[in-house]
Amino acid sequence: MAVQIERTRFFAPELRGFIVRALVASGVSPEDAALAGDVLVASDIRGIESHGLARLELFYVDRILDGTIDPRAVAVTLREGPGLLSVDAKNGMGHPVSVRTMRRVIEKARSNGSAAATVTHSNHFGIAGYYAMLALEHDMIGIASTNSGGLAAPTFGKSMLLGTNPLAYAIPAEDGDSFVLDMATTTVAYGKLEIAKRLGKPLKPGWAIDADGNQTLDPAAGMRGALLPLGGFGTESGGHKGYGLGLLVDILCGVLGGGAFGPDLTRHGGLLDPSITSHFFAAIRIDAFRDPAEFRRDVSRLLAQMRGSAAGAGGERVYTAGEPEAIRTAEHLLDGIGLDPVVVASLQRVAEKLGIDPPQPV
Amino acid sequence: MAVQIERTRFFAPELRGFIVRALVASGVSPEDAALAGDVLVASDIRGIESHGLARLELFYVDRILDGTIDPRAVAVTLREGPGLLSVDAKNGMGHPVSVRTMRRVIEKARSNGSAAATVTHSNHFGIAGYYAMLALEHDMIGIASTNSGGLAAPTFGKSMLLGTNPLAYAIPAEDGDSFVLDMATTTVAYGKLEIAKRLGKPLKPGWAIDADGNQTLDPAAGMRGALLPLGGFGTESGGHKGYGLGLLVDILCGVLGGGAFGPDLTRHGGLLDPSITSHFFAAIRIDAFRDPAEFRRDVSRLLAQMRGSAAGAGGERVYTAGEPEAIRTAEHLLDGIGLDPVVVASLQRVAEKLGIDPPQPV
Repeated sequence: MAVQIERTRFFAPELRGFIVRALVASGVSPEDAALAGDVLVASDIRGIESHGLARLELFYVDRILDGTIDPRAVAVTLREGPGLLSVDAKNGMGHPVSVRTMRRVIEKARSNGSAAATVTHSNHFGIAGYYAMLALEHDMIGIASTNSGGLAAPTFGKSMLLGTNPLAYAIPAEDGDSFVLDMATTTVAYGKLEIAKRLGKPLKPGWAIDADGNQTLDPAAGMRGALLPLGGFGTESGGHKGYGLGLLVDILCGVLGGGAFGPDLTRHGGLLDPSITSHFFAAIRIDAFRDPAEFRRDVSRLLAQMRGSAAGAGGERVYTAGEPEAIRTAEHLLDGIGLDPVVVASLQRVAEKLGIDPPQPV
Repeated sequence: MAVQIERTRFFAPELRGFIVRALVASGVSPEDAALAGDVLVASDIRGIESHGLARLELFYVDRILDGTIDPRAVAVTLREGPGLLSVDAKNGMGHPVSVRTMRRVIEKARSNGSAAATVTHSNHFGIAGYYAMLALEHDMIGIASTNSGGLAAPTFGKSMLLGTNPLAYAIPAEDGDSFVLDMATTTVAYGKLEIAKRLGKPLKPGWAIDADGNQTLDPAAGMRGALLPLGGFGTESGGHKGYGLGLLVDILCGVLGGGAFGPDLTRHGGLLDPSITSHFFAAIRIDAFRDPAEFRRDVSRLLAQMRGSAAGAGGERVYTAGEPEAIRTAEHLLDGIGLDPVVVASLQRVAEKLGIDPPQPV
């Protein structure tokens, strides 16, 4: 029997306004709060419930109030060249510094063709895809990534040495359509194990190992073990590829930026230590290669070839990366976003703690 | 019972010399033949038997002799900027134009911080990792990719709309060590299905679908169906991520370059049409971000953290991407490369066709 959850619907601008009020009341500047609000509400708008409002209390407000994150941090540029940028976030929130850095990367790519940047000593920045997508309206390809705390084991290992280390790529198509790949380099996020445990369901092969490094379908055993990289256990189904991608992300973010990496990205109580997260951003100008209108037309043609191709067993149709999120965006902007009761209660607590009005439902 | 294959050993310089002689006798210029020889022998040196000597006859010599590939093609630069480059290979061999383009990307990254290039109207270029690795000695991060003919189906589809579309990243560490991720974005290469069929063994989950789009463990059914993207069937174990990466490669190579993409990359007799393969190359200068010696030291530290971590069930130890290939390189350079009888026979035929001496075994 499916668990029926009574969701409460809110319009996106209402939720965004609440995030901004909460962050400002926590001590964040209005400018930074506005940027963080854009990123966090975008996550729920796109249907990625795990990375938006659900994290406001525990990942941001509580950590600002207890002094873990510096709400007034001013990021410092460490190195700058025509095509690159190295930024120290000085333990501020991850979102504002990431938006500003990606904007600078886009400006640099405009004069340079391509550009890349690292941000170190940052904190959780939400969905990587948001920053990659900032490139879309500039007719550029956007790339964004972040390292994160140890949850996944390397192939044939059993220690949690790698985060879910997402990779995001955004590529513009015609008429506002796009290709947006925003993927953890593990098979699944940790939350999938928690959900399976709560529902009493077995895990799927390729998700997790137990504490001895054996593949397991038992959620509790997986939670005492580690996540598997994309491709699953061992090398037979390509687990070494997902592991390689995860390590690549850690190198591009943590090592290239000169920040923390590997097992130094420790966790306490499920949360990363402050100030040890690093990000990587890049942009490539399309018109340096070919006419952007022709490029977008061809991307749309390729996407249509996929979407229009015959469905195989088990599927209604073929989607392209970012298409389900674009469909949910259209629905959510029109009808509002349904939040889980657990999230609604968390927003209530935030409002009480900070003495602000809670968000008003639809 | 394991099939015992009697291999013949050759030293790498002997094999390289043979490739160069064969290509020159086929009509390729000595300069281009030397570059192609470097790439092709590097594949066998690294233990990637599928992409080197094994392809000399069918993919290169025969296709030059029958006029499919132009051995005297001169590549043309279509667009050039401080950080980018668009090249038309004019239906020449894929290797020389790719080496030259990656070298130009490295030069551009030197003055610019980062640079990217596309090559269109090219042919098979061998192992993507070779080009990415050209960046290593320049203290840069190298990136290389190519699209290829349809063998894989998109998630929940059944048509072969995507190639194995490899992604390669090379990152320098200390003392000549490195991180080299060179991975097909499908779970396995097509050759794995052929091997399973020959040995009468079932496929593994996540490798292939049958012609109706059902996951299959039957090699013959898989060969009539399609390869699955990394992550396997459906979305449960992340198959949509491998599919996304495959489509990303096709966009960066085929669409960005203005070449062929998607189902236009057709095959005849197992081989791609000439002149429709596109590649993507990029380089990022490390010292634009931080001192390269410190960077290499930290990469080595991260690699050591992985390699030194506890082995889990089913594994002797943890490797890092490119490490098995580096181990094989050391062995092969010292002891020679053992070639399969099928490959040795193919090289004999090449020698006879072209009236040149075959390679001499150790």
